[in-house]
Amino acid sequence: MVSISEEGVIVPLDVPKAMRKTYVKNYMEITKGTGRLMLFAGDQKVEHLNDDFFGEGVPEDDADPEHLFRIAARSKIGVFATQLGLIARYGMEYKDVPYLVKVNSKTNLVGTSQADPFSNLWYDVDQVAEFKENSELNILGIGYTIYLGSEFEAEMLVQAAQVVYDAHQHGMVSVLWIYPRGAAVKDEKDPHLIAGATGTGACLGTDFVKVNYPKKEGEESAEIFKEAIKAAGRTKVVCAGGSSDEAEAFLEKLHDQIHISGAQGNATGRNIHQKSLDEAVRMCNAVYAITVEDASAEEALKIYKGE
Amino acid sequence: MVSISEEGVIVPLDVPKAMRKTYVKNYMEITKGTGRLMLFAGDQKVEHLNDDFFGEGVPEDDADPEHLFRIAARSKIGVFATQLGLIARYGMEYKDVPYLVKVNSKTNLVGTSQADPFSNLWYDVDQVAEFKENSELNILGIGYTIYLGSEFEAEMLVQAAQVVYDAHQHGMVSVLWIYPRGAAVKDEKDPHLIAGATGTGACLGTDFVKVNYPKKEGEESAEIFKEAIKAAGRTKVVCAGGSSDEAEAFLEKLHDQIHISGAQGNATGRNIHQKSLDEAVRMCNAVYAITVEDASAEEALKIYKGE
Amino acid sequence: MVSISEEGVIVPLDVPKAMRKTYVKNYMEITKGTGRLMLFAGDQKVEHLNDDFFGEGVPEDDADPEHLFRIAARSKIGVFATQLGLIARYGMEYKDVPYLVKVNSKTNLVGTSQADPFSNLWYDVDQVAEFKENSELNILGIGYTIYLGSEFEAEMLVQAAQVVYDAHQHGMVSVLWIYPRGAAVKDEKDPHLIAGATGTGACLGTDFVKVNYPKKEGEESAEIFKEAIKAAGRTKVVCAGGSSDEAEAFLEKLHDQIHISGAQGNATGRNIHQKSLDEAVRMCNAVYAITVEDASAEEALKIYKGE
Amino acid sequence: MVSISEEGVIVPLDVPKAMRKTYVKNYMEITKGTGRLMLFAGDQKVEHLNDDFFGEGVPEDDADPEHLFRIAARSKIGVFATQLGLIARYGMEYKDVPYLVKVNSKTNLVGTSQADPFSNLWYDVDQVAEFKENSELNILGIGYTIYLGSEFEAEMLVQAAQVVYDAHQHGMVSVLWIYPRGAAVKDEKDPHLIAGATGTGACLGTDFVKVNYPKKEGEESAEIFKEAIKAAGRTKVVCAGGSSDEAEAFLEKLHDQIHISGAQGNATGRNIHQKSLDEAVRMCNAVYAITVEDASAEEALKIYKGE
Amino acid sequence: MVSISEEGVIVPLDVPKAMRKTYVKNYMEITKGTGRLMLFAGDQKVEHLNDDFFGEGVPEDDADPEHLFRIAARSKIGVFATQLGLIARYGMEYKDVPYLVKVNSKTNLVGTSQADPFSNLWYDVDQVAEFKENSELNILGIGYTIYLGSEFEAEMLVQAAQVVYDAHQHGMVSVLWIYPRGAAVKDEKDPHLIAGATGTGACLGTDFVKVNYPKKEGEESAEIFKEAIKAAGRTKVVCAGGSSDEAEAFLEKLHDQIHISGAQGNATGRNIHQKSLDEAVRMCNAVYAITVEDASAEEALKIYKGE
Repeated sequence: MVSISEEGVIVPLDVPKAMRKTYVKNYMEITKGTGRLMLFAGDQKVEHLNDDFFGEGVPEDDADPEHLFRIAARSKIGVFATQLGLIARYGMEYKDVPYLVKVNSKTNLVGTSQADPFSNLWYDVDQVAEFKENSELNILGIGYTIYLGSEFEAEMLVQAAQVVYDAHQHGMVSVLWIYPRGAAVKDEKDPHLIAGATGTGACLGTDFVKVNYPKKEGEESAEIFKEAIKAAGRTKVVCAGGSSDEAEAFLEKLHDQIHISGAQGNATGRNIHQKSLDEAVRMCNAVYAITVEDASAEEALKIYKGE
Repeated sequence: MVSISEEGVIVPLDVPKAMRKTYVKNYMEITKGTGRLMLFAGDQKVEHLNDDFFGEGVPEDDADPEHLFRIAARSKIGVFATQLGLIARYGMEYKDVPYLVKVNSKTNLVGTSQADPFSNLWYDVDQVAEFKENSELNILGIGYTIYLGSEFEAEMLVQAAQVVYDAHQHGMVSVLWIYPRGAAVKDEKDPHLIAGATGTGACLGTDFVKVNYPKKEGEESAEIFKEAIKAAGRTKVVCAGGSSDEAEAFLEKLHDQIHISGAQGNATGRNIHQKSLDEAVRMCNAVYAITVEDASAEEALKIYKGE
Repeated sequence: MVSISEEGVIVPLDVPKAMRKTYVKNYMEITKGTGRLMLFAGDQKVEHLNDDFFGEGVPEDDADPEHLFRIAARSKIGVFATQLGLIARYGMEYKDVPYLVKVNSKTNLVGTSQADPFSNLWYDVDQVAEFKENSELNILGIGYTIYLGSEFEAEMLVQAAQVVYDAHQHGMVSVLWIYPRGAAVKDEKDPHLIAGATGTGACLGTDFVKVNYPKKEGEESAEIFKEAIKAAGRTKVVCAGGSSDEAEAFLEKLHDQIHISGAQGNATGRNIHQKSLDEAVRMCNAVYAITVEDASAEEALKIYKGE
Repeated sequence: MVSISEEGVIVPLDVPKAMRKTYVKNYMEITKGTGRLMLFAGDQKVEHLNDDFFGEGVPEDDADPEHLFRIAARSKIGVFATQLGLIARYGMEYKDVPYLVKVNSKTNLVGTSQADPFSNLWYDVDQVAEFKENSELNILGIGYTIYLGSEFEAEMLVQAAQVVYDAHQHGMVSVLWIYPRGAAVKDEKDPHLIAGATGTGACLGTDFVKVNYPKKEGEESAEIFKEAIKAAGRTKVVCAGGSSDEAEAFLEKLHDQIHISGAQGNATGRNIHQKSLDEAVRMCNAVYAITVEDASAEEALKIYKGE
Repeated sequence: MVSISEEGVIVPLDVPKAMRKTYVKNYMEITKGTGRLMLFAGDQKVEHLNDDFFGEGVPEDDADPEHLFRIAARSKIGVFATQLGLIARYGMEYKDVPYLVKVNSKTNLVGTSQADPFSNLWYDVDQVAEFKENSELNILGIGYTIYLGSEFEAEMLVQAAQVVYDAHQHGMVSVLWIYPRGAAVKDEKDPHLIAGATGTGACLGTDFVKVNYPKKEGEESAEIFKEAIKAAGRTKVVCAGGSSDEAEAFLEKLHDQIHISGAQGNATGRNIHQKSLDEAVRMCNAVYAITVEDASAEEALKIYKGE
């Protein structure tokens, strides 16, 4: 099993001296002492409205927001990422879940053909820290999405820089979702562009950067993803899960991202929660096994299948 | 009769510990101890200008803004929602009315064909709290409208997030009006879209979310509304009354919303105030009977008819 | 003669308890103890640039800004409304004039065909209060203009709400000028639209709202104006004087506005200052006689004629 | 020689009592005890980039920014107006120069055909006051440019109102440059429009307003300029020098502006600095002689010629 | 070898008295006591995304962000300029590197044909100062980019003015990157326009201004660059290195910029880091030799070649 020591955690220098221990503690906890992040992504109720939670092929369990919390509570996860408002409403019964507060969100109603995307900061980090103290919840990190190449990029870069800086002021771990999107972006999955995104994340000083898995005609994604991992330097790259995949292929993809590309984790949402509770828990544990417990894709598939 | 206990109120975790008692008190009072909200909506003097208050079919009583206060004072209601300025001018004679301050409003002059809607925050919650203390009025909650899918959605989501968070800081109850509207929105009454709206309300952490009643060719509104109730989770859904209906059908609709769809109340404006004072009071009491006193539509209709 | 008592003044509830006496004093003084407002409007040097002050038919006296102060000092008026900068420059010699500071203004250069109107807040109310204290001038109120239906309506509604609220914090009287204007507004003088404007003023909690006199083919303005007076409720409506009229017709119009329509005053600018000093003073007194001293139009005309 | 007494200075009422003496001192010093302002304008390095300082017909001396300081130090001037950054870099060797900090500037790259002009506030007045104290320089005033009729007029009017108000809070003298410009402005030199500009300056409460000299087919500029002087009331009007003129005509124009039109000074830039140092100094002294020493145009021309 | 004394440093007057010693120390250190600046520019991971760091002709070393730090640590440089986030992640192992924090950045995705460029302020200078204290890194200066002639010029000029002013408040050295760019800019390399840029830098009070090397058909760049040096006055001009050149020509160009044009240094990025570590270090030292050690181009070439 992979593992890092507390001493091995490189604390970024914008973490105040008095908060370095807190940062190390949060970092170790969010990565389960491995440096790898298994992030259970549950922010889609705004991002995709009810599309991911109701309709053909989505089990009934997923219609209730509490489904996300039930999964988070019963599975092995690194951290559960969702909006503050939802955490505030369910957290009292899910106190042991490790949380990451996603501080910006937008809906999918206005498409890129109408206007470039802008996702605005709902809360500043000081409010999240206040909420953490008042709620006594186990909030380990903060997340923020940037649409690189949007005409509103300038504003999102500033908010992201401030979110990372301020998260570190409180000893919390930062995760940036960076997606190239907008009229100027021809191919969102271009590997070179995604490497630009992870490099930008590095310059913003984030601990983790979540990007889409690159895709290029005639190329292996796991291979072309290496450019992005390199470009991020000491910022760790985690890969977005995307829409629901067939389990075996999905788990193999995750394993490749870590063991071929060099990713340090993943952020999985729909592939987990668009399942009945039991199946979702097993998928969560399977993803966790690959990410944190260094399992093979086959071992993980067994976990998912409950074998 | 439905009822909840003080202990049964789930206090959201963004309410500071010192304000939890206040929140429970406000929540119990605004729902009359039932968890259900009967909101008398009186913010249309800005939203629709004088259209709802003067003209064919509108009784003369409604031309005077005090009509709203007279109704609120003589009827059974959960809360009366209107703008701070109006409350400041009449409240001294209507001290027993339970108020909810609607903190944003826009007129209907600029249509969606000209520009996407934006309703801006008139007062921050701290000012409302200051007003509450100074006026000694019984202000129980704060209301804010979001136009989801508007090009100004980003700004309204932030204001809404702050309004909910700040209302909770003061132990007050929050109600979000969420209406999909703008060039990007093809069908404002689509049930799936309305479920997106209530889910967004949940992620914003609001106590109540007010949406339009869905409508779909060949479907029962009461049935297709269930998706939205589900999507809201622990956030309670109340349904907008819309334009003036015939009484019997209107009361049956409200009853269905609660007993078929699972709504936890309603927000009624024109169906109440576009009547002479006596009739308006009886309608108010009829709506209250369904919402809070668990009356049947028939019983409520009798109340309205003064039988 | 009409009169109200100090006890009869309904103090809006956003006036802090400690400032209620001040508010009553200011309100009584600005209305001369009648509840009616005679406002001498002198903000046109920005709003209309030099158009109202120089050119054919405008007497030479009006070219000098001091003309406005000379009139205000020698006439009976309720309050003289103009920009802070002008007051700062002449006030030391006109210390007895009752002032209202108009806190926003725009020029007439950019027409509605080019862009919707936006008049921005020049000073916040705290600065006006600071100026009042430092200057020891008799500043009784604050004025602000909203262009309802402009694409910038959202910003002006917020500024207006804050101006009214803050004026009340300092015990000062608020006057909102509300003019529907912009690409979305087809008929600025429509009586129903103007009633929407006064109702909006009421929801903003202003003490007085100044609107244009409605005009409709085949209708008596004095009659159709009643809708707007009703819609305003306890907010008092004063009517804009508009461009220079023939004296007799003008005074009859003012009388009708009060005695037929129910207006509580008027705001007159060009009909006063576009006259030589003596004539302007007599017109001022004539307007005052109708508004405050309950004179008939004939009596007022005699005052104007110096008979 | 014209002169005013300290007692004769009308201190605007937004100057705090404690700062009135400072204001009088600054006002007397900037006008050399005459009430007239000779302003040496040196802000063109941003406004016109290097166009005024290098190229055909511009002497080599003018290529070096220090040229402006050398002139200011060796000539008689009322005040030298330029950007803070430049003052910060040369002021230590030019401590006796009286300065006015121009707090906004824009380049001439984006023309009116592309977008309406907006010149943004670089520093607030408190920073200028802080700079004054720290640098121990003799900073007497603050300058700000408004483009009236621009679509950004609303923002510039607010900044100007604040700059004037804040300058007075510190006892400093304010100068507004007001130029009608933008798609809505057909004739920037129209005398009536320029009178609108000076009247706007008066309403903003500025001590001095700098405008362009009006021009109208078949009219004497010195005559038609009178409207603008009148419209400004107690705000003093100074006239922009414009592009480089032939000396005799230029000096006569200045003399006419004061003695025919009633201007209280002028703001001269290129007519001074686009000369070798010696010649520039003589021109400065000539302009000063007309403005402050009440010289005739002929006497001034002799000064310029070194006779 | 060129050198200046501490007494010879002209401290700009916006540096507070208490910080003048700090400023002199930083200025001497960043220029190695010569007044000339060798700036190693490493902000391209955002500005050009991964284009400069991966692909044909770029050695593998450059794919890792640490490459920049390795070069900075092993070479002679004046200062290494990059984003705060990157410094925060690597600085603990590169404590001896002299840093300059680039506080704004944008990507190259949205081209000028789509929208004018805007690069927004990521951190205010107080945060950089806080970071400096907390990190104990050797941060000597702050950098900011302005796109002159962009429709967003107004906002960038304000941010630049504040960055320079605030950097000086902390005794830090300021460097402005000023590039004319946008729909209004026809020829970004025009020598007269670049002189406008350096003059603007002077008016903003910056210590150093970095511009592109001018280019004009039929003219020697080194000659036509003189206008820009002149226009900057006491603000020192450093020249952008641009894309990767052949070594000999590149070093001669640098030498000419200093010894013919009068530049006081250069800012080199790709010409250094797009090499393997050893070669990059030698190039760095070569550039340093010309800039700081007054070497000839031939001597520098030998250093680069390791001879």
